[in-house]
Amino acid sequence: MGVVVQNCPRADPDAVAKIAEFGVATVHESQGRSGLLAPYMRPIYAGAHVAGTAVTVSVPPGDNWMIHVATEQCRERDILVVAPTSVCSDGYFGDLLATLLMTRGVAALVIDAGVRDVAELTRMGFPVWSKCVSAQGTVKETLGSVNVPIVCAGQSIEPGDIIVADDDGVVVVRRKELATVVEKAAQREAKEAKARYRYANGELGLDINDMRPRLAEKGLEYKDGSEPD
Amino acid sequence: MGVVVQNCPRADPDAVAKIAEFGVATVHESQGRSGLLAPYMRPIYAGAHVAGTAVTVSVPPGDNWMIHVATEQCRERDILVVAPTSVCSDGYFGDLLATLLMTRGVAALVIDAGVRDVAELTRMGFPVWSKCVSAQGTVKETLGSVNVPIVCAGQSIEPGDIIVADDDGVVVVRRKELATVVEKAAQREAKEAKARYRYANGELGLDINDMRPRLAEKGLEYKDGSEPD
Amino acid sequence: MGVVVQNCPRADPDAVAKIAEFGVATVHESQGRSGLLAPYMRPIYAGAHVAGTAVTVSVPPGDNWMIHVATEQCRERDILVVAPTSVCSDGYFGDLLATLLMTRGVAALVIDAGVRDVAELTRMGFPVWSKCVSAQGTVKETLGSVNVPIVCAGQSIEPGDIIVADDDGVVVVRRKELATVVEKAAQREAKEAKARYRYANGELGLDINDMRPRLAEKGLEYKDGSEPD
Amino acid sequence: MGVVVQNCPRADPDAVAKIAEFGVATVHESQGRSGLLAPYMRPIYAGAHVAGTAVTVSVPPGDNWMIHVATEQCRERDILVVAPTSVCSDGYFGDLLATLLMTRGVAALVIDAGVRDVAELTRMGFPVWSKCVSAQGTVKETLGSVNVPIVCAGQSIEPGDIIVADDDGVVVVRRKELATVVEKAAQREAKEAKARYRYANGELGLDINDMRPRLAEKGLEYKDGSEPD
Amino acid sequence: MGVVVQNCPRADPDAVAKIAEFGVATVHESQGRSGLLAPYMRPIYAGAHVAGTAVTVSVPPGDNWMIHVATEQCRERDILVVAPTSVCSDGYFGDLLATLLMTRGVAALVIDAGVRDVAELTRMGFPVWSKCVSAQGTVKETLGSVNVPIVCAGQSIEPGDIIVADDDGVVVVRRKELATVVEKAAQREAKEAKARYRYANGELGLDINDMRPRLAEKGLEYKDGSEPD
Amino acid sequence: MGVVVQNCPRADPDAVAKIAEFGVATVHESQGRSGLLAPYMRPIYAGAHVAGTAVTVSVPPGDNWMIHVATEQCRERDILVVAPTSVCSDGYFGDLLATLLMTRGVAALVIDAGVRDVAELTRMGFPVWSKCVSAQGTVKETLGSVNVPIVCAGQSIEPGDIIVADDDGVVVVRRKELATVVEKAAQREAKEAKARYRYANGELGLDINDMRPRLAEKGLEYKDGSEPD
Repeated sequence: MGVVVQNCPRADPDAVAKIAEFGVATVHESQGRSGLLAPYMRPIYAGAHVAGTAVTVSVPPGDNWMIHVATEQCRERDILVVAPTSVCSDGYFGDLLATLLMTRGVAALVIDAGVRDVAELTRMGFPVWSKCVSAQGTVKETLGSVNVPIVCAGQSIEPGDIIVADDDGVVVVRRKELATVVEKAAQREAKEAKARYRYANGELGLDINDMRPRLAEKGLEYKDGSEPD
Repeated sequence: MGVVVQNCPRADPDAVAKIAEFGVATVHESQGRSGLLAPYMRPIYAGAHVAGTAVTVSVPPGDNWMIHVATEQCRERDILVVAPTSVCSDGYFGDLLATLLMTRGVAALVIDAGVRDVAELTRMGFPVWSKCVSAQGTVKETLGSVNVPIVCAGQSIEPGDIIVADDDGVVVVRRKELATVVEKAAQREAKEAKARYRYANGELGLDINDMRPRLAEKGLEYKDGSEPD
Repeated sequence: MGVVVQNCPRADPDAVAKIAEFGVATVHESQGRSGLLAPYMRPIYAGAHVAGTAVTVSVPPGDNWMIHVATEQCRERDILVVAPTSVCSDGYFGDLLATLLMTRGVAALVIDAGVRDVAELTRMGFPVWSKCVSAQGTVKETLGSVNVPIVCAGQSIEPGDIIVADDDGVVVVRRKELATVVEKAAQREAKEAKARYRYANGELGLDINDMRPRLAEKGLEYKDGSEPD
Repeated sequence: MGVVVQNCPRADPDAVAKIAEFGVATVHESQGRSGLLAPYMRPIYAGAHVAGTAVTVSVPPGDNWMIHVATEQCRERDILVVAPTSVCSDGYFGDLLATLLMTRGVAALVIDAGVRDVAELTRMGFPVWSKCVSAQGTVKETLGSVNVPIVCAGQSIEPGDIIVADDDGVVVVRRKELATVVEKAAQREAKEAKARYRYANGELGLDINDMRPRLAEKGLEYKDGSEPD
Repeated sequence: MGVVVQNCPRADPDAVAKIAEFGVATVHESQGRSGLLAPYMRPIYAGAHVAGTAVTVSVPPGDNWMIHVATEQCRERDILVVAPTSVCSDGYFGDLLATLLMTRGVAALVIDAGVRDVAELTRMGFPVWSKCVSAQGTVKETLGSVNVPIVCAGQSIEPGDIIVADDDGVVVVRRKELATVVEKAAQREAKEAKARYRYANGELGLDINDMRPRLAEKGLEYKDGSEPD
Repeated sequence: MGVVVQNCPRADPDAVAKIAEFGVATVHESQGRSGLLAPYMRPIYAGAHVAGTAVTVSVPPGDNWMIHVATEQCRERDILVVAPTSVCSDGYFGDLLATLLMTRGVAALVIDAGVRDVAELTRMGFPVWSKCVSAQGTVKETLGSVNVPIVCAGQSIEPGDIIVADDDGVVVVRRKELATVVEKAAQREAKEAKARYRYANGELGLDINDMRPRLAEKGLEYKDGSEPD
């Protein structure tokens, strides 16, 4: 506790820009269904979609001092990722900290706790994914750490990992796997576009994906449920 | 497990069209306050209001194979109702399956689990009532059943039952009771329209419904709480 | 049980109008971080912001009779605050009661239980903060009390207390402390406006609030995390 | 609402005695993994294991009047199964009702709500599976029904169904399927006894059930994780 | 915040000794079903049953400093009642603090948060009712208050109020109402003893309490559910 | 997915034996309050206290196939640590698998999901810490991985990490830090023994830890709350 790691490597900005074109579900699939944060992490307003490098913050319960420390470590296109060391619902973050982060070009906040001033954050267009909304303030008494590995909403996140977030939730991509995931996501999207076309024309997944023989092999039975006249 | 019942009877389309004019609260009242799914079933966007015949799907946890099987059984104005056999929050359903269901005229999805691609589903105008939103994908390995009785969000649902859903939640109506419920809902709505007029003119429920004598009989006391000058 | 206290004192209307200019987070801070209701109390639509004097209602589980009794006690700018005596999610309140309350000038409902007709309440612009949405109706069989002290969502509320509610939640202010809280909120807002200006110009909280010496004293260490070339 | 169905058929006592020899997990498996109540249903003390015919009770929230009505319908070896019509945690049942039920030979209570007097119930040896423990009392104002189909903790239960409960939870068996389930449970138990013997001798499930070829076919890879000296 | 109120009045020891003879459910009933803490408050071991005067402690999340301050205020037969100012599950209390409290004759701890060292606390026979068990430690950085009014698990508690706790949960009795509640509890217990005797002899609540006419008046119907031969 | 890492290094058996002498709370404190699994992880019976090297298993929801694969990788004094890839409450583990693990000398199971046969597991004395108890069985259809890094109940766990578990919960210790943690735990225990002696003699933490000056500096006020005669 009480450590700030500076100058952590960022993800390649071009690759981040590319992964930002894909939704969370696509990214999650493209890395073997790993890295998804718990579904209780919800956006404070609908429609936001961001990607960026994680600046991680480990905070004590009810104490947001280290978020102030972390702001200094943030650069353009970073995403601040905050996890308390024990379960907490307090509102660690509001419009003042958002104002500061926006001047630094930070893309979003992801926090396994509460936020406040959500009406103002919505007007400012600063997106947040959080566990809850709470006006309950926090103190500035105890140290935590910045840019150390954390567990946020059930996922391990390292500083320098890439975060993608949209209305479906939040997913983390390891920095070394970013290029591969971008490539697989593009392939998946292309494949889905074709499937979407066929679905829109009334074809079934049963036929597109040739599921009928395997269903029969597993023993699926069809019965008639119509009522006698 | 592993059964698909085909050609289940549908509710009378005219009766379905009529019940769709009433909100969930009115329908729930009109059938003696029964049939309401648990309040954790929430719409992915506000303002949708649908009615249709239930095509039921019993699915294993984390396995959406049977939803593909069920799509083939869906007809115009059906509503797909999905319940996992054990508690699960995975995202069983996304925009591809919605594309397919829309070509078949399916009115909505009701699922006691998660959905994903909710931004896209909102743009498409395909309404979903679900337990949660989650990008977590599912496998296609284990059989379930289509058009068998299920328990979804705390309510028994039979294939052919009628589902009504709006911003207040989801209610199920037995097919044989549909005509009666439509009639009672119309009566209730007429009665409420009159009450609304009187309420809007400043009358109290205490007087409209003649509650004062019964309150007095139960022993309700009135005291003065004004402060001395 | 079974008591209605009438003519409870209201808060000074001018002071209520003033406190309504401040958000819940500001009010909560201005009274020493007390009085915040639990964060599960959420608005049924975004963007509402109200203040008013509490008319309190203690209700049995699944029984809304006393809400009818309470409506008669409500005056302009009051806020109805309802708490069941045991945990309950039923829909105690819908558009008819809202119609009645709007004719009396009531500003909002705060209820540690469910509401229904939320689509219609949204159209009417009657704001509600509640634990959940549920179409489940209630009976009118058992007495409760009006304008007695209650605990609502974890906070003690007395009749005549002031309620402030916005997208961040709900806070209660004691009537005798209203003038002081208004004053402190104005001071806080003024101070925050200055801080916001400095944050918007790229200054850090670390510097604005002179945090660096105290962080050093607590033992905060800075390390380099850059990767070797 | 407001119906008491009398003289419902009971399950064959010999078959009930037989099924009582098997644990909940075995019974659940023997009927194709169906019928298990939600895992929040827990015994008030460890070590109880019962089976009996369900007498079902549908109760309003916070109102235990119908449990009194139901006691008259209970016979030897019945199990009272109670579900509120909306979510409720009140203590519907205590030592007085247990005293009465024990004189009638009732085997247990299963309730999707709260119970109280649990220290006394434990001393009396009257087993209860419930959602929670709560001293909160209930009123006797509103009718419900006895021996109608209910949904209890996520499962449909009909009067006359068989309930089996132990430290693993509660499972329901349809009356017409009881003989088949008893037979399958006996087969399963015999098979498990053999497997237990082999496991106790150090054999692996991988070999006993010949899993290795199928794992290889699915693509399972083995890697070495030992550290270099 | 930051206040310690000393020498608060205690309840009459004889009355406390008397109320300790009654269970939580009886006490709760005897004061009109008020004062029960939320049912998530559970004992760390079964079988404890205590009563005593509340010494209240308002603590910050994750900070147990004020519990140390409060120990000095505790006298024989007091019960320490702790509530965090925002939701927290940390383990505020362990065997060292219990050792200290036992030397002072303190009867129990009631805490709307976590405790630890529960195996040791059980061996020592120091009873605790808590929201959860957690080994997560707390800091000593921020002030709270001792012997101020708090809300604990949904109930207002004043210093000097009486706490009764057993396996059914925790209830608070106002100091001024203690004598009345003791008297009513004794009456209730006497009445229940008679009812228990009649129940044990096979009489029904339907007859003992003459419920049949009122059930009939409400419209309860009896139907036959026996199967045709 | 689909990887089994074999021959992972184990922790030094002597160090494991030593750490097993300390409780979870002590170990958690001795490593800077890190590594504690979420408090919902509870033992199936009271009084167990174990330590061992983690064999990690990542499993699909509702599929326990990989637990069978993992048993082959287990050695004496290992602890099996299982985490599903999405939230799941199914009963992955029962008495047969426990029989097998006991023949191999495995010390315990830690699982972020359900277990079953808990009465039998208790009789066998095989300790389990789990999220819940559920008789719901699982399938054997989809691969997972053994001895890969997992997140279990909110903590990152690597194969070869050390697990300590008792009635307070479960904590993970990094293998490289084991010796240090053992040493610090011994120091802490020695210090606590001294404190316990002083507490048992009636001294206060306020004096033992010299808290009074710092409390005064923070502004703690003492007031008199005694009632006038």
